Amino acid sequence: MDVMDEATRRAWAYVSRVAEPPHRLLSELVATEGVVAAAERIRRRDIDPKLLRATEARYDLDCARDDLEVLDRMGGRLLTDTDEEWPHLAFAAFRGVDHARRPQGRPPLVLWVLGPLLLCDVAERSAAIVGTRAATSYGEYVAADLAAGLVERDFAVVSGGAYGIDGAAHRATLAADGDTVAVLAAGLDVPYPAGHSALLHRVGKHGLLVSEYPPGTRPTRRQFLTRNRLVAALGRATVVIEAGVRSGAANTAGWADALGRQVCAVPGPITSASSVGCHELLKRDGVTLVTRAADIVELVGRSGEFAPDLDRPTTGLDDLDDVELAVFDALPGRGMSTVDEIAVTAGLPATDVLGPLTMLNVRGLAVQENGGWKLAKRWPPAAQLPLV
Amino acid sequence: MDVMDEATRRAWAYVSRVAEPPHRLLSELVATEGVVAAAERIRRRDIDPKLLRATEARYDLDCARDDLEVLDRMGGRLLTDTDEEWPHLAFAAFRGVDHARRPQGRPPLVLWVLGPLLLCDVAERSAAIVGTRAATSYGEYVAADLAAGLVERDFAVVSGGAYGIDGAAHRATLAADGDTVAVLAAGLDVPYPAGHSALLHRVGKHGLLVSEYPPGTRPTRRQFLTRNRLVAALGRATVVIEAGVRSGAANTAGWADALGRQVCAVPGPITSASSVGCHELLKRDGVTLVTRAADIVELVGRSGEFAPDLDRPTTGLDDLDDVELAVFDALPGRGMSTVDEIAVTAGLPATDVLGPLTMLNVRGLAVQENGGWKLAKRWPPAAQLPLV
Repeated sequence: MDVMDEATRRAWAYVSRVAEPPHRLLSELVATEGVVAAAERIRRRDIDPKLLRATEARYDLDCARDDLEVLDRMGGRLLTDTDEEWPHLAFAAFRGVDHARRPQGRPPLVLWVLGPLLLCDVAERSAAIVGTRAATSYGEYVAADLAAGLVERDFAVVSGGAYGIDGAAHRATLAADGDTVAVLAAGLDVPYPAGHSALLHRVGKHGLLVSEYPPGTRPTRRQFLTRNRLVAALGRATVVIEAGVRSGAANTAGWADALGRQVCAVPGPITSASSVGCHELLKRDGVTLVTRAADIVELVGRSGEFAPDLDRPTTGLDDLDDVELAVFDALPGRGMSTVDEIAVTAGLPATDVLGPLTMLNVRGLAVQENGGWKLAKRWPPAAQLPLV
Repeated sequence: MDVMDEATRRAWAYVSRVAEPPHRLLSELVATEGVVAAAERIRRRDIDPKLLRATEARYDLDCARDDLEVLDRMGGRLLTDTDEEWPHLAFAAFRGVDHARRPQGRPPLVLWVLGPLLLCDVAERSAAIVGTRAATSYGEYVAADLAAGLVERDFAVVSGGAYGIDGAAHRATLAADGDTVAVLAAGLDVPYPAGHSALLHRVGKHGLLVSEYPPGTRPTRRQFLTRNRLVAALGRATVVIEAGVRSGAANTAGWADALGRQVCAVPGPITSASSVGCHELLKRDGVTLVTRAADIVELVGRSGEFAPDLDRPTTGLDDLDDVELAVFDALPGRGMSTVDEIAVTAGLPATDVLGPLTMLNVRGLAVQENGGWKLAKRWPPAAQLPLV
C-alpha cells in the first residue's frame, strides 16, 4: 500500500464515519475533490443539500484520530481505491446493479482491514459460504466439508463471522490452513457475536477481517444487510448451506444475483426448517444445486476445472447388449432351462440364443449342465431386477 | 367396456404374448387387419420377415384361453384401444417420443387390468411417485406425506408396486382412501415382490393393478424398464422421492421427460446415498424441485391451483419504513439515549428522529423515561440483528 500522509488518512477515516455507507454523493464528492478537500467542505457545510442532511448528525464528530489509533494498535490498515490491494475487479460488479431497486448496491468508500492476506488476491479465487445462525449439525457438517474442499482447490472462503454456518465455514477453513475472510457489520474492535471473539481473532491473525465501519461501531440490522453486499461481492460464487424461511443468507444470495455472481444452494431434508430457504432458492432460475466443492469450482474456477463424475457401481452386466441381456434375464434362478425354453421366455428365435448363452457362460454368468442352462450361483434372482 | 366376443378376446390375449411388447409391426398389423385376422396371419406365418422373427419363439404357444381363464377368475379385464376405458389422452403423449432413441416409446397393445377404478379417469388427475427400493425412513415418510397430500387434492397416485418408495406411496394412498394404480412388470397373478402380495391384493381390490404382460409372466430387467414408460405415461407428473446413483426411478423420470410430462424431484441430505439420484436430476434443466403436494398440483393441476405461500414468521418490525427501522436499530438495549445520541447512531438529522421515536413508542417498541429513550423490554438486543 502506498504510504499515505496522516492528513489524508484522517480525511479517509472522517468520511468513513460521517455518513451511513455507502453514500453516492459522498463517494462522488471524494472522487472529484479528493478526500482531504471533500472532508473540509463537509466540515464547512459547503455541500449539496442532500449530502448536508446525510452528514448533519455526524459532521462535527471528530474521532478520526482515535479511530486510526485503535486501528494502528490492532495492526490493521485503511483500504481505499487508491491502494493496490483494493479489489477493483470484484467491486467492478457493482456497476451492473440496478440502483433504483438497490440504492446500496455500490462499492464501499473505505474498508477497515486486519490480517496478513491481500484482499485483492483472495477475491480472485473465492467462494462465499453463508447460511442460518440456527444451523443444524447437518448444516455445520456440510459447511465444514465444502470449506475444506474449497481450500483443497486453493479457494478462499468468505463469510460473515456469525454463529452457525458462517462460523463452521471459517473454522474449517482455518483448520485446513486455508484463506478465510470475515466481513463484519461492526467495527474491527467490536467482536460480534461475543461468542466468536476468539474465532474472529484467529481470522484476523491468519486470514482477513474486513469492515466498512470505523472502530467502535456496533452492529445494526441495516449494517448486516449492507454488509451482505460485500460478502457477495468478495466471493466469485455465493453458496447458501442452510437458511430458514426468512434469512439473511437469502439477502446475501440476492446481492450475489444482483452482482451477476453465481448463486448456489445446498439442499437438505424437506422436513428441516433450516433448509426451507435453500429449497425456495433452488426453485428459482439461475440458482445452482451444489453438493460438492468441485461443483462450485466447476462454476467459477478456471475453464476446464470440471467436477469429476460420480462413481457409478457396476454390475458385471453393463457391457451386455440387448440380446445378451434378454437371454440373461431369461435364465432360471433355480432349476434348468433348455435353449428352446430360454428362447420362448426371451421372445427370441432359438437360433439367436445359443451364441449369447455361450458368451454368458464364458463370462461366468451362466452355467451349462447336461443340456440345460441356468444362472451362475453368484447371481441371486435379485440380479434379474433393475438396480435401484 | 363394449362386450367383446370370445374369439376377439382370445386374439387380443394371443397378440399380447406372441411378441415382446411393445412391437411396432405387431401394433400396425393389428391396426390394419383387425386383431382376429392379425392373429391368424401370425399363426400362418404370413407376415413381414421382421415380425416373423419377433414372433418365431412364441407364435405356436396357445395359452390365450388359459390366460383369459386366469384373468376371469381374478375378476380382471382386458383393455385395448377399442375400450372406452382406454386412456387415449395419456397415451397420446407417446406420439411425441423420438423412436430412434427410444424404440419402446410406444403405447401398449393390450393391458391386463384388475380393480374398481377406470384407468381413463385416474390418468386424468394423477401423479407418479417413484423412487429407490433402498428407501430411508426419510424417503418413506416423504412418499407417504406427498401421497396423502395428493389424495387430499383429489389426485390419483401411480407407482410400480416395488419395495421402498413405491410401497410407501401405495400404502399411504390406500390409508387415505385415495385412488392408487400399480403398474406391474409381471403378470397380474404373479405377485412381485412376494413381500408385497398383500399390498398388491389391496391395490387390486380398491385401486388398479395394470400389466402389459399376460398371466404367469415373471418379471425381468427389460420388463421393468419397459413398464416404467407406462408409470410415466399414466402420471401427469413423475415425482422422484429418493434415488441412488443408478436408479430405476431415473429411468422413469427419463420416460416422463421423453413424454413431455413434468419431472419433479424431492431433495434430501447430500450426505444420503439415497438422495444422490434426486440431486443429479435437480441439476438438469426442466426438473422441478418439489417439497409439498401443493407444488405438484400447481404444476399439473387445473389452471389457478396455486400452491399457498409459505408462512413467514413476522417480527413486529415488518411494516417499519427505513427511517423508523434505522431509529429502532439505534435504540440502546441497556441504558438510555438522548434524541441527539440516537440521531448520531442512526446517522439521521435530529429533527428526523423524534417523529419515528414517538411512533415506535406508540407501537410499544420504544420506551421513554425522563427525556431518554431505550428499547422496550420485550426486545432483546437480538432483535437488532437480521433474522436468520
